[in-house]
Amino acid sequence: MREIAVIKVGGNIIDNEAKLAAFLEDFAALPGNKILVHGGGKIATETGDKLGIQSNYVNGRRITDKETLDVVTMVYGGLVNKKIVAQLQQLGCNAIGLTGADGNIISAVKRPVGAVDYGYVGDVTGVNVSLINTLADAGFTLVMAPLTHSEGVMLNTNADTIAQQTAKALAETARVQLVYCFEKKGVLMDADNEDEVINTIDKISYEELKANNIVSGGMLPKLDNAFEAIDAGVSKVIIGQAEALVELLNGNAGTQIIK
Amino acid sequence: MREIAVIKVGGNIIDNEAKLAAFLEDFAALPGNKILVHGGGKIATETGDKLGIQSNYVNGRRITDKETLDVVTMVYGGLVNKKIVAQLQQLGCNAIGLTGADGNIISAVKRPVGAVDYGYVGDVTGVNVSLINTLADAGFTLVMAPLTHSEGVMLNTNADTIAQQTAKALAETARVQLVYCFEKKGVLMDADNEDEVINTIDKISYEELKANNIVSGGMLPKLDNAFEAIDAGVSKVIIGQAEALVELLNGNAGTQIIK
Repeated sequence: MREIAVIKVGGNIIDNEAKLAAFLEDFAALPGNKILVHGGGKIATETGDKLGIQSNYVNGRRITDKETLDVVTMVYGGLVNKKIVAQLQQLGCNAIGLTGADGNIISAVKRPVGAVDYGYVGDVTGVNVSLINTLADAGFTLVMAPLTHSEGVMLNTNADTIAQQTAKALAETARVQLVYCFEKKGVLMDADNEDEVINTIDKISYEELKANNIVSGGMLPKLDNAFEAIDAGVSKVIIGQAEALVELLNGNAGTQIIK
Repeated sequence: MREIAVIKVGGNIIDNEAKLAAFLEDFAALPGNKILVHGGGKIATETGDKLGIQSNYVNGRRITDKETLDVVTMVYGGLVNKKIVAQLQQLGCNAIGLTGADGNIISAVKRPVGAVDYGYVGDVTGVNVSLINTLADAGFTLVMAPLTHSEGVMLNTNADTIAQQTAKALAETARVQLVYCFEKKGVLMDADNEDEVINTIDKISYEELKANNIVSGGMLPKLDNAFEAIDAGVSKVIIGQAEALVELLNGNAGTQIIK
């Protein structure tokens, strides 16, 4: 059976040149098929600020008006994606950077306006597994920006969701590991103590952790995403620190999400 | 023998939403294999201005310092490239947008510092024809941004040159047409009279046109590029107006460059 690791990196790694370079070195050296999904870090917000465009958030999600869409298309699809691709090429990893629009690799719809109008935000409707496999078989390593498209326009899309939907779609025909890299060592029992990593979370313990307010905020959608992936047949979901990528994949670090 | 059209669009088409949409409609409807190479228009300069970054030119070429490199990577590789890809997808053309770094499709070196230090500018050293053919055979239409890479960094690269080098490399195994679309109807006998298009230019008439100052400025590198392509085996090189794309390819408009 085909094996593939889908690795999402975001947060402070993207924003820190030295950390990103070290992470990409680890990523490039990983054996086997792998896909990198990146977020945008603070660069989009900073670029928007410099261009005089205000960033607005509701429930941690950016509201994407026309001007903000241009900024995220530039920063995620251009600056961040191509910097990563150029560095991976230099490391001998034959990277190819795509948004969901390229080859229609991720199809989406513009999020319907409900209580909140999120603007130009995409909800993923499909993943082109055949294109992913064609590129993998031809020796390319896919680097995906958190952007999709619909009806001729680009759409801003959460990177965790891109990673999860990609992992789920691939899981139908492959053994898939999904790794969320972020700034902490894993899900923590005590937010102030980096060494108290919870090794495994199952659905029962997740309910307890929520009830006791041990996990909250931005960690909730990440964990919801993780459980959805496991339910859809992804073999392994791990959350942990980008600096420990190799250990995360070996099961020696981070928090593993289990059924 | 494989047939392919390499079409370069730039200038005022990229800057004008309605003109770009009309051009993409014509492009999407073209039968057969085709590649689009786009420039960046004025958006990079405008974005740089808004970000407080000065654009500097020597002999019509932008000097690309580190900050300008980030701007062109954002604008060419992100904003312009992905807008074009999303629109082509909507038109039923399965576009895939790449820079030279993606899949190492165009290899380059940073231009050596001579009388002028052009900064982060790439001189093309090779074109990955095998990847281009793989994508074409899989039904994708390549949309190339004017960016290459070397030693882990992106490099700003003239779009006319990308188009010409791609056409030349493909010409080794295919019948290639190279079309430079710009704002005028072709090379003009009289810059003030749009209807005085020179139908064909060969090397002898080119020398005369230069001696009589009928062609000058930015037209010179374009024509030099064109003659180099013809010399390298490209079947047909045409220069003309983006609005007349279909007529240009049919030989009913524009200026054709012949040996």
